[in-house]
Amino acid sequence: MSFRDRIAACNNYDPARAVTLFAGNERVGLLRRDNAAALRRFSDVFAVADDRVDVVARGDVAAVSGAVDAVVDALVAERRVPKWRNETFDVAPRWGAPVVFRLDRGAVPFFGTRAYGVHLNGYVWDSGTLYLWVGRRSPDKRVAPDKLDNLVAGGIGNGHGLEETLLKEGEEEASLPRSLTSRAVPAGAVSYRMETELGIRDDVLFVFDLEMPADFVPKNQDGEIVHFELMPVSAVLDRVRTSDDFKFNVNLVILDFALRHGLLRPDDPEYLDVATGLHRPLD
Amino acid sequence: MSFRDRIAACNNYDPARAVTLFAGNERVGLLRRDNAAALRRFSDVFAVADDRVDVVARGDVAAVSGAVDAVVDALVAERRVPKWRNETFDVAPRWGAPVVFRLDRGAVPFFGTRAYGVHLNGYVWDSGTLYLWVGRRSPDKRVAPDKLDNLVAGGIGNGHGLEETLLKEGEEEASLPRSLTSRAVPAGAVSYRMETELGIRDDVLFVFDLEMPADFVPKNQDGEIVHFELMPVSAVLDRVRTSDDFKFNVNLVILDFALRHGLLRPDDPEYLDVATGLHRPLD
Repeated sequence: MSFRDRIAACNNYDPARAVTLFAGNERVGLLRRDNAAALRRFSDVFAVADDRVDVVARGDVAAVSGAVDAVVDALVAERRVPKWRNETFDVAPRWGAPVVFRLDRGAVPFFGTRAYGVHLNGYVWDSGTLYLWVGRRSPDKRVAPDKLDNLVAGGIGNGHGLEETLLKEGEEEASLPRSLTSRAVPAGAVSYRMETELGIRDDVLFVFDLEMPADFVPKNQDGEIVHFELMPVSAVLDRVRTSDDFKFNVNLVILDFALRHGLLRPDDPEYLDVATGLHRPLD
Repeated sequence: MSFRDRIAACNNYDPARAVTLFAGNERVGLLRRDNAAALRRFSDVFAVADDRVDVVARGDVAAVSGAVDAVVDALVAERRVPKWRNETFDVAPRWGAPVVFRLDRGAVPFFGTRAYGVHLNGYVWDSGTLYLWVGRRSPDKRVAPDKLDNLVAGGIGNGHGLEETLLKEGEEEASLPRSLTSRAVPAGAVSYRMETELGIRDDVLFVFDLEMPADFVPKNQDGEIVHFELMPVSAVLDRVRTSDDFKFNVNLVILDFALRHGLLRPDDPEYLDVATGLHRPLD
């Protein structure tokens, strides 16, 4: 068990197992080959070749999204996509680029479209020791039930901007007043590409740090977190290194936090693995 | 001119233009094809094939280093390697792995062996504004003359550890007392792979931040820096974005600093380019 293992778990993507999903000349997703094959019969929406899949549905964003929704409906019925989440993510070649279609969140890994999230490290300095607020995810969560999580984390859904997602999730997940969350400091992004049982996660997590008032105790409102605990960062790092108690991608966000705040030292034999393993270059 | 341009300049390596230098089964370097071809006649030291070069000199580190030195001598005479620097870098498959041979610093890009350096961001907070100490490199420097630089930066030569290099360079370059430099906080590493006229730079820069006393003015001792200036980080970022005033790799160290300290915001159109462009995964 090592930091390397945590990083590798989020970067197990193997290009030989996937084909690119194109919209025009631009990549918008990565389909595992079995998932690509399952799209063959929807030839009015997707053109499936051996080495690529093309979106062929035409029209505006609403029209393409509707055509894709009909496919997702069939995939849900076949249990290839687990379930509708009724929350959509924008699909685009790049962050900020025009949207090609909107996709139910439950189908995002099936199509391997890039997803964006926000993660907030809530920290407290006390007597020279740095602490992190850690949440335990509900046993009812579809992804990573019971695992440990950041103070606040959420996907950036269609129609919600990055900052708005952070403020909203801060309220719902941890009862953070917006006046507090808005003091969060952006500190970069963690990126990785991971194959799961559902397909491919091509994820970018915007990372924020927030120094928390010493007397503030977060309280969950939406049922997604069952418990919050303030843990010394050294203890958090021990659990990251020696267990899989934390949600897969939260390990990476915590390693990034620890590295930026000088809590990992260059004499750690995994220092360079961490320093060069958390920011997969986007292509 | 953009942050992307600065990042791309340090990552222009094209694997099609290089072959791997092996020691046993492990990669220890990357030779541009013309450089590889120039090694053919030294068949007692290097075995040059179309798709790889192998170190075939045998013996302990001193013996292999001596054999390679004889080759470097010839390469310097032919002006393929610019000049002896009389400072050697360890050559190894990975940081911390056993050394295969030692190589004169001037020949490092020719062989494309991985080089390690330390860069120190010296900063000052004043009235809510963050400033960086910036040095101007001497016009006599072989690499990047006249360019702007971090407060302290240097390669990690054979026999000097990372911390020792930082302390020593702090004294020589900026007259920083060791008691001050030792308060520097490690903050990760910047990594990139770059083709230059000499060959390939496969570089890892350990990054440190040091909050400087408000009344301390750095003073160069070794003639490598002609002038120091305290600049607001916003002005530094403007110059990084719109000019090539800074040494190629210093741009990356400054972008990393700005990102970690919240001085780049997610609404910057280049935010994700920066967040995912400074840490080339090591392979």
